[in-house]
Amino acid sequence: MASSNIRYGPGVSREIGMDLQNLGAKNVCLMTDQNLARLPPMKAVLESLTANKITFKVFDNIRVEPTDSSFKEAISFAKKDSFDVFVAVGGGSVMDTCKAANLYSCHPEADFLDFVNAPIGKGRPVTKALKPLIAVPTTAGTGSETTGVAIFDYEPLKAKTGIASRAIRPTLGIVDPLHTLSMPERVAANSGFDVLCHALESYTALPYHQRAPCPTDPILRPAYQGSNPISDVWSRHALNVVAKFMKRAVRDPEDLEARSSMHLASVFAGIGFGNAGVHLCHGMSYPIAGNVKSHAARGYSVEHPLVPHGLSVVLTSPAVFSFTAPMCPERHLEAAEILGADVRRVKREDAGEVLADTLRQFLSDLQVEDGLMAVGYSRDDIPALVKGTLPQERVTKLSPRAHTEEDLSQLFESSLKLY
Amino acid sequence: MASSNIRYGPGVSREIGMDLQNLGAKNVCLMTDQNLARLPPMKAVLESLTANKITFKVFDNIRVEPTDSSFKEAISFAKKDSFDVFVAVGGGSVMDTCKAANLYSCHPEADFLDFVNAPIGKGRPVTKALKPLIAVPTTAGTGSETTGVAIFDYEPLKAKTGIASRAIRPTLGIVDPLHTLSMPERVAANSGFDVLCHALESYTALPYHQRAPCPTDPILRPAYQGSNPISDVWSRHALNVVAKFMKRAVRDPEDLEARSSMHLASVFAGIGFGNAGVHLCHGMSYPIAGNVKSHAARGYSVEHPLVPHGLSVVLTSPAVFSFTAPMCPERHLEAAEILGADVRRVKREDAGEVLADTLRQFLSDLQVEDGLMAVGYSRDDIPALVKGTLPQERVTKLSPRAHTEEDLSQLFESSLKLY
Ligand SMILES: NC(=O)c1ccc[n+]([C@@H]2O[C@H](COP(=O)([O-])OP(=O)(O)OC[C@H]3O[C@@H](n4cnc5c(N)ncnc54)[C@H](O)[C@@H]3O)[C@@H](O)[C@H]2O)c1
Ligand SMILES: NC(=O)c1ccc[n+]([C@@H]2O[C@H](COP(=O)([O-])OP(=O)(O)OC[C@H]3O[C@@H](n4cnc5c(N)ncnc54)[C@H](O)[C@@H]3O)[C@@H](O)[C@H]2O)c1
Ligand SMILES: [Fe+2]
Ligand SMILES: [Fe+2]
Repeated sequence: MASSNIRYGPGVSREIGMDLQNLGAKNVCLMTDQNLARLPPMKAVLESLTANKITFKVFDNIRVEPTDSSFKEAISFAKKDSFDVFVAVGGGSVMDTCKAANLYSCHPEADFLDFVNAPIGKGRPVTKALKPLIAVPTTAGTGSETTGVAIFDYEPLKAKTGIASRAIRPTLGIVDPLHTLSMPERVAANSGFDVLCHALESYTALPYHQRAPCPTDPILRPAYQGSNPISDVWSRHALNVVAKFMKRAVRDPEDLEARSSMHLASVFAGIGFGNAGVHLCHGMSYPIAGNVKSHAARGYSVEHPLVPHGLSVVLTSPAVFSFTAPMCPERHLEAAEILGADVRRVKREDAGEVLADTLRQFLSDLQVEDGLMAVGYSRDDIPALVKGTLPQERVTKLSPRAHTEEDLSQLFESSLKLY
Repeated sequence: MASSNIRYGPGVSREIGMDLQNLGAKNVCLMTDQNLARLPPMKAVLESLTANKITFKVFDNIRVEPTDSSFKEAISFAKKDSFDVFVAVGGGSVMDTCKAANLYSCHPEADFLDFVNAPIGKGRPVTKALKPLIAVPTTAGTGSETTGVAIFDYEPLKAKTGIASRAIRPTLGIVDPLHTLSMPERVAANSGFDVLCHALESYTALPYHQRAPCPTDPILRPAYQGSNPISDVWSRHALNVVAKFMKRAVRDPEDLEARSSMHLASVFAGIGFGNAGVHLCHGMSYPIAGNVKSHAARGYSVEHPLVPHGLSVVLTSPAVFSFTAPMCPERHLEAAEILGADVRRVKREDAGEVLADTLRQFLSDLQVEDGLMAVGYSRDDIPALVKGTLPQERVTKLSPRAHTEEDLSQLFESSLKLY
C-alpha cells in the first residue's frame, strides 16, 4: 500500500509557491493544457508562483489524452532546459505527460520504449532519481496525483498503454476542490465515470492472494497487486461518495459540496486502484479510445476526434460486471446496493444482472451515449477492438474471471447498445 | 495525508531478506526486545536474513516503553557501527527505539533534546537523510510502522514525550498477521485499546479547518492536522474492525481471522491518527505512564513497574468522551453505535454519556483494571498528573473542546474508578 502525499482543502493550491520555495526550486517546469492555461486553476497557481518569486517556464502544448508523439514533445521541452521541479496543473492528460517529461529528462539516454509497459515496451525499471513533481488535479477523475502510472495512446498500435513505476508517482498532490468548479458538465461526467470504474474494478479485482504466480522476490511485485483489505477500504468508500454526490456534481457546477466530494473520491479511488489495479473496463477502454474514428467529444474544447477516457471505460461496464459477477457475487451485490439498488430479495446468481441494470440506469440518468455505436463503432470493428485488448494483459489479468478472445468479443458486442 | 508503504499478508515477513538484498544492505542493524528475541516473529526474520546471506547485528536491550536512557543506549549501539539499513521487529517500544537510533546515528552532532518535541525539547527539523528502516510490527497496537512518531518516557519530568518528524517514518512496514499469534492475552488487550483510542481520538479530533492559527507556510504544517475527510475514512474503518473483532482477538489467541483483522486495524488507525492526531486520552496517558509507582503490568514479561501504553490511554476514555461530546455529538453517537450501542432514541445532548457507558461496558467485558486507582493512583496524585499533561499541548490542543487545568483535574478524578 502506497500513495503520494496528499494535501486537501479549498484554496490549498495558493500555497504552491511556498512549497516550491521550500523545495529550493530554482527553475520550475510548469505544465498544463491550452484550455486550462486561461482558466482559474492555472491563474491561482501562477499568482502563487509570482507572489513567491519562483522562476518557471510554462509548457502548455499538452494533448488531451496524450499520445507517444505528444509525450515526446513535452519530453524534449523538459530536456532542453534544466528543471529542478515539475508542476502539473490539469487532469490526467497533463499529470501523465508531466510524469513522462520528468522521467525521460532524468534518463536522457533512454529510448522512449524502454520504460513503457511490456509487451509494447521493454518495461525497464527506473534506476535514477527523478525531480520532485507536484500534481494539482483539476478534474475529479483519474487519481493520477496518487499513482505511479502515466497513460498514453501508442499510435502505431492504436491502443493506449503506459508507464508504471513507483518512481514517477508525484511527490505531493495538491487537491483543491475550488479547481473543479470550472469543469464543463461533460468533463465532470466522464471523469466521474472514471472514478466509478476505478472503484468498481479495484473492488472486484482478483484478490491479492489468488494472484499467480507469486513473485519470487518482493522487488518483482507488480504495482497492481489485486484487491486487498487496504485497497478495499478506499474503493468501497469512493463508491459510496460517487453514489451520493456524482449526479449533483455533474448537474450543478456550483454545488461545491458535491464537486469537493467527487474530488476527494477521485483521490480515494486512485489510492484504491493504484494498489489493487483495474481490470476489464480499463483494459477494453484502451482500444476503444485508440481506434476512435471521427467521434467528437461532446462538451470538450478539443479539436481531434476523442472518446474521453471515462466514457471509453464506462460504456462496457454493464457487460463487464455481468460477466465477472459469478466470481464474487457478494461484492457485485454490495456495489449495486451502494449505487441504490434494492438487493434484499436478489439471489446470488442474479448479482451481475442487478449491478448491470443499476449501472445502465445510472448512465442513462446522466445522459451517457447509448453504447459503442453512439461513439462510432459497429459490429465490424469488434475484431480490432479485441486485438487491441490483448496486449493489455497487465490489467486484464486482474479480472476475477478468466476470459478468452471469444469472451472479449461478446463483451464488446453486448456494449454496442446499452439502453 | 501520508503514510509508509505497507505490505500485508500472512507470511510476508519471510521476504524481508530479499528486501534487504534489494536495498543493497551491507550491514543491517536489527532491533528487538529480549522477550521477542526468543519468539516466532524474530525467528522468521532471522531465518530469512540467514537464507539471504545478510550481514547484521542484533540489539535486543530495548526497554518495554522506552525512556530517554534506553533510547540513548540504542543510539550509542547504532553510532558505534556503520549501519546502512535498520530493521525493527516488535511492538511500539522496539519500532520507536529503532527510529531514534536511526535518527541520531545519522545526526551524530545533535544533542538528544534537539529533535524532541517542544516544549520539552527543541523540536528542530531533521535536515539529513536517514537510512531506510523496515518495521515489522508484532503487536496489533501502535501503528508505529506507519507514523513519523517515536515516544519515550522522559525521566527527569516523569512524562512521556516524543519525536515527531516525517523523516523517521519507516520506509516499509511489513505487517504479517502470523506475528500476532504469540501475543499474550493482556498484550493483545492493551495494544488493542491503543487502536481503539487512536480511532476514537482521531475521529473526534478538532477538524482541520478549525485549527488555529493557520500556518503561514506549508512547511510549518504540523504532523497532526486535525480530523479531515481522509483520516476519517481510516479512523471510522478501524473502529468498525475493533468493534467486530477485538473481543475475539483478545480471548482466543488462535483466532487468526480476529488477530489478523486487529493487526490491519492497527495500521488503519495508525494512518488515521498519524495524519489527524490524537488528543486528551493520549495527552493524559503520558503522565499516567510516567508517574507509575509499583504497578506490575499483568501478563507482561517485564521487570519494571509499568502501566502499559494502551491501558494508560483507555482508562480515561469514558471521562474524556463525555467531556468532548458536546462539540460533535454526531460523531460520538456514531462511535457508540459502531461499538454496539442502540442510539436510535438517544438525544444529542446524551451522546457523551452513551459513548462513555458503551466504553465502560467494553472495558469491563475485557476485564480492564477498574480505573486509575487500580493501577496505583489516588486523589492526591491528581495535581502531578495534571502538571504532566500540560506540556502535552502538541496533542491536547487537538481536543475538540478547549479545557482548563480544572477540567483536566476533573477528568482524572472521574477516571479514578470506572465501574
Ligand atoms: N495516470 C493514471 O493513473 C490515470 C488513470 C486514469 C486515466 N488516466 C488518463 O488520464 C486522461 C484523462 O484525464 P482526465 O479525465 O482528467 O481529463 P483530461 O486531462 O483529458 O481533460 C479533459 C478536458 O477537460 C479540461 N479540463 C480539465 N480540468 C478542467 C477544469 N477544472 N475546468 C475546465 N476544464 C477542465 C481539459 O482542458 C481538457 O480539455 C486519459 O489520457 C487517461 O487515459 C490516467
Ligand atoms: N510511534 C507511535 O506512533 C506510537 C503510537 C502509540 C504508542 N506508542 C508507544 O509504543 C509503546 C507500546 O508499544 P506496544 O503496545 O506495541 O507494546 P510493546 O512494544 O511495549 O510490547 C509490550 C510487550 O509485549 C511483548 N510482545 C510484543 N509483541 C509480541 C508478540 N507478538 N508475541 C509475544 N510478545 C510480544 C513485548 O516483548 C513486550 O514485553 C509505548 O511506548 C507507546 O508510548 C508509539
Ligand atoms: Fe481510469
Ligand atoms: Fe497510542
